Amino acid sequence: MTHSQRRDRLAARLAADGVDAMLVSDLVNVRYLSGFTGSNAALLVFAGDTPAVLATDSRYRTQAARQAPDLQTVIERACGRHLVARAVADGARRIGFESHVVSVDGFDALAKELGEAPAELVRAAGVIEALREVKDAGEVALLRLACEAADAALAQLVAEGGLRPGRTERAVGRDLEALMLEHGADGPSFETIVASGANSAVPHHRPTDAVLAEGDFITIDFGALVGGYHSDVTRTFVLGKAAAWQREIYQLVSDAQRAGREALEVGASLSDVDGAARTVIADAGYAEQFGHGLGHGVGLQIHEAPAINSAAAGTLLAGSVVTVEPGVYLPDRGGVRIEDTLVVGERGPELLTRFPKELAII
Amino acid sequence: MTHSQRRDRLAARLAADGVDAMLVSDLVNVRYLSGFTGSNAALLVFAGDTPAVLATDSRYRTQAARQAPDLQTVIERACGRHLVARAVADGARRIGFESHVVSVDGFDALAKELGEAPAELVRAAGVIEALREVKDAGEVALLRLACEAADAALAQLVAEGGLRPGRTERAVGRDLEALMLEHGADGPSFETIVASGANSAVPHHRPTDAVLAEGDFITIDFGALVGGYHSDVTRTFVLGKAAAWQREIYQLVSDAQRAGREALEVGASLSDVDGAARTVIADAGYAEQFGHGLGHGVGLQIHEAPAINSAAAGTLLAGSVVTVEPGVYLPDRGGVRIEDTLVVGERGPELLTRFPKELAII
Repeated sequence: MTHSQRRDRLAARLAADGVDAMLVSDLVNVRYLSGFTGSNAALLVFAGDTPAVLATDSRYRTQAARQAPDLQTVIERACGRHLVARAVADGARRIGFESHVVSVDGFDALAKELGEAPAELVRAAGVIEALREVKDAGEVALLRLACEAADAALAQLVAEGGLRPGRTERAVGRDLEALMLEHGADGPSFETIVASGANSAVPHHRPTDAVLAEGDFITIDFGALVGGYHSDVTRTFVLGKAAAWQREIYQLVSDAQRAGREALEVGASLSDVDGAARTVIADAGYAEQFGHGLGHGVGLQIHEAPAINSAAAGTLLAGSVVTVEPGVYLPDRGGVRIEDTLVVGERGPELLTRFPKELAII
Repeated sequence: MTHSQRRDRLAARLAADGVDAMLVSDLVNVRYLSGFTGSNAALLVFAGDTPAVLATDSRYRTQAARQAPDLQTVIERACGRHLVARAVADGARRIGFESHVVSVDGFDALAKELGEAPAELVRAAGVIEALREVKDAGEVALLRLACEAADAALAQLVAEGGLRPGRTERAVGRDLEALMLEHGADGPSFETIVASGANSAVPHHRPTDAVLAEGDFITIDFGALVGGYHSDVTRTFVLGKAAAWQREIYQLVSDAQRAGREALEVGASLSDVDGAARTVIADAGYAEQFGHGLGHGVGLQIHEAPAINSAAAGTLLAGSVVTVEPGVYLPDRGGVRIEDTLVVGERGPELLTRFPKELAII
């Protein structure tokens, strides 16, 4: 789908909502709808035939012309205010704005710009995020590449003996990030997590100079960025022989993860998907040791709609790309998390992260 | 300065402003005041003796205990709402919030939490950013390390022949980022810019597969991240013999950059500092080819207070750390930018990025 087609989808939604034009302030949403990746920008999309307008500052004049050649671009540092004035000048009376993104001070500046004009700012939170939830073919292709780069990097790391006693978490993380670049990534999709031994009980542990030791759990949670799209995958290994407690919680998390993947059906309630995995863990008596949601959408952001947790409203949509990542964490001992990225589809989920999930004794 | 001492400085400021407690929502500000680096958190700081409270969710229970052992921590996903209720329970009547950070929807949730309580939310935008503008000794030490890592990486890249015709911008960028890790960086401080030939006329060009060619300008704008602190440095090279127009604009930008550095005096007006460099470029007839501000503060963020541009109010403070980065960009031909990071001090600026700035013919 072209950026222009995405804007048409938004325009149809605005028309249905009775909004004349929408000010897009979130930079990821601006990118989604225009292709432009600068750090200061806003986009105005009309419900009717009036062409969209991109605003950015002078640093990005050339970049905007390259990335969004089909869009009229204005160079103006105060992008949002300028576009609100533009919307009014073009006859918009109900102007949508991203109330979940625009700050209290930012809103005041927009309202001041509006002044006595016969127009109003109306909340349009999450409208574009909802469009982004369903990925088009081009997006899925990039997500597939991002997952393949991550898989290939981890496979090479393991094959070359990169996971062995004596190495630091930090060294493992750096190797993995370098390998992702070799396998086509533009960069890591977030700060790589390498958590060894007791650190593996910390879900978002950042790599330290902690040294990998025989018998440790090693949890690696990482992903690659390709063309703006993020992959997200976690594998947990044991260095050397696994103890009985390690085999037990690994099997438990593995079972829960499979249950979660199998629950990824179009139309399934998001909280039921979470529940499918959570029940497995709770039934084994570890409910308290799984303190986070089951998964989340991935795309232009590492965390986006839909959130999959026990409090989530809504259902799974065909074409959404999500993670399934249950974990069990035993403080001061260690933890296991297993995570895949999958495409939700009518014929069942398609697994994008294909690195094996059997407990690997390294 | 310890995190506790930073909170004491904030408390004194709140007391002076007649604010009883402040809800800190910006995650960088939370880190500055607590040491905690999780992705979901808020901090409540009181003007009086009531101890500060950190809120985060269950993923970060262990991490919060490690990073902020001196703080009372509550585990609660809706951090801001919980802390506002806590502030009211502890007797706060005027509760500051970050109106430049909290979204319109976020504010509504806080106001709803307040309900009929005898308290009000008052704007406290930029209060902590202002404290952060003056770096303490520990911060300067980390910034120095970040600048040294960047300098050393660029020196090694050049020494090893990494800049030569036939290589791609992307390959150069990746090498430089890998070298920064070798020299002690935790990562790049932002996405490395490598812009060759005509691309060097694009201030924020992202590396592509464009191939470096004899006679090209190569602009490299990059930095290292060390302990959360960012360095920022730009150097422009010529591959092979420089043409007359290249020598001319290089010398011009170099002169402007020196003028900007020499204008970094404690108490100088920020717009005058910008003007010192801009005048040099304007006098040579290139005013239109220098379309961005002269510089910005660096610290826990790559761009922070003070902004140094023609519209900036305020003056330079002793202990602030800033960049000076004029450029001249000739569309479709090429451009030059030269940038240093410096500490502002009573005895003149201290240069942290020490890689040479003479035009290097490589």
